[in-house]
Amino acid sequence: MTDIPVVENVLKHNDEFAQLNRDALRAAGVSCVNLIGSPGCGKTLLLEKTLRSLRGEFRVGVLTGDIATTRDAERLAAYCEHVGQINTGGGCHLDANQVRQGMKALPLADLDLLIVENVGNLICPVGFDLGQDAKVGMFSVPEGADKPAKHPRIVLEAGLLLLNKIDLMPYVPFDFDVFLHDLRSIRADVELMQLSAASGDGVDDWMDWLRRFVAMKKEARAACTT
Amino acid sequence: MTDIPVVENVLKHNDEFAQLNRDALRAAGVSCVNLIGSPGCGKTLLLEKTLRSLRGEFRVGVLTGDIATTRDAERLAAYCEHVGQINTGGGCHLDANQVRQGMKALPLADLDLLIVENVGNLICPVGFDLGQDAKVGMFSVPEGADKPAKHPRIVLEAGLLLLNKIDLMPYVPFDFDVFLHDLRSIRADVELMQLSAASGDGVDDWMDWLRRFVAMKKEARAACTT
Repeated sequence: MTDIPVVENVLKHNDEFAQLNRDALRAAGVSCVNLIGSPGCGKTLLLEKTLRSLRGEFRVGVLTGDIATTRDAERLAAYCEHVGQINTGGGCHLDANQVRQGMKALPLADLDLLIVENVGNLICPVGFDLGQDAKVGMFSVPEGADKPAKHPRIVLEAGLLLLNKIDLMPYVPFDFDVFLHDLRSIRADVELMQLSAASGDGVDDWMDWLRRFVAMKKEARAACTT
Repeated sequence: MTDIPVVENVLKHNDEFAQLNRDALRAAGVSCVNLIGSPGCGKTLLLEKTLRSLRGEFRVGVLTGDIATTRDAERLAAYCEHVGQINTGGGCHLDANQVRQGMKALPLADLDLLIVENVGNLICPVGFDLGQDAKVGMFSVPEGADKPAKHPRIVLEAGLLLLNKIDLMPYVPFDFDVFLHDLRSIRADVELMQLSAASGDGVDDWMDWLRRFVAMKKEARAACTT
């Protein structure tokens, strides 16, 4: 009984900060993606490829969350000048206030897209609104086909789901029919994209999704202000 | 400021239940391992092989934690008659009270070893004492070599670390020197075992570790009671 109101308070606080983030992003005309997946599912490698490809097309900022080290930010800084590392000091997810502090270090008015790479964790980050326009959930083939069934919340809340590391299909047991059946049982209409950040297969589809996403958000904002 | 005392309360409660578990396990003469790793790092497959091999040698009970589904318990029940599934209903880790409830469903006095397969999460489960004799941390090759550096707490607290899926080394970029260097920088003396639950390589070493672990705990208990 004692910890229920506490969780509500924490989430209430978080939601207030998330709304501030949402307002700041909207005012600056920035679309925001919150990328969520297990440790080592391939988030950073996909972002390396993404940032390299989008150079000169979009102005992108990245905030990357980790418990420790600045390794992801260092990797991404090779392809993007606006990268911030948020170290949670043991915390298992990014919260909206941490992202708010991170956003202050970015030239928001100069960006089209903010990508938040959450802490590697398929569970806790899902529950914390950061003010993003869409959560993107990432599974990966070596994790096994049972992950959607075991982690239904990311399936329910994602604007897009990625299945990464499809190049490893020949080397691991992965029943795609089970994966897809579970996914569709939880949520029939969720968009799924198969790709390999390592080989590059399917990465163009993800780029096109990002292009449509940014264009759609721009149109929606224009419609709201006219 | 507001949530710090709350966390302390939660952990204090947890520690009380963990001590009750520890007392119950000691009284029943059961050694207990708390297996922690990312979603899909291979915990359940390793336990399938473990339970099959240990049949007739040890009397083993398993409690397996998940957010949703009873799939892991169903898989393990093929090799072990004392398997319980704990569904956390969204919770990102097992706590000591959940394990306490799970233990009540097992014939503790008839067991030598209790294996707790924690929720797939490399972060939150580490902070919650379940009353185990040892935490065993599991990394896997496709997660990448940077995982010890990013998740130092499991390295600091584990009685044994496993690196699973070594059969995938030829197919993914994994710098073992970086992995080992980071590991040893965090904790020079931690025991590391490389294995593949899928191919069976190295699994015998893990079995031998379990044998030594159970024997050592039995000796320690005998020394305490004489």
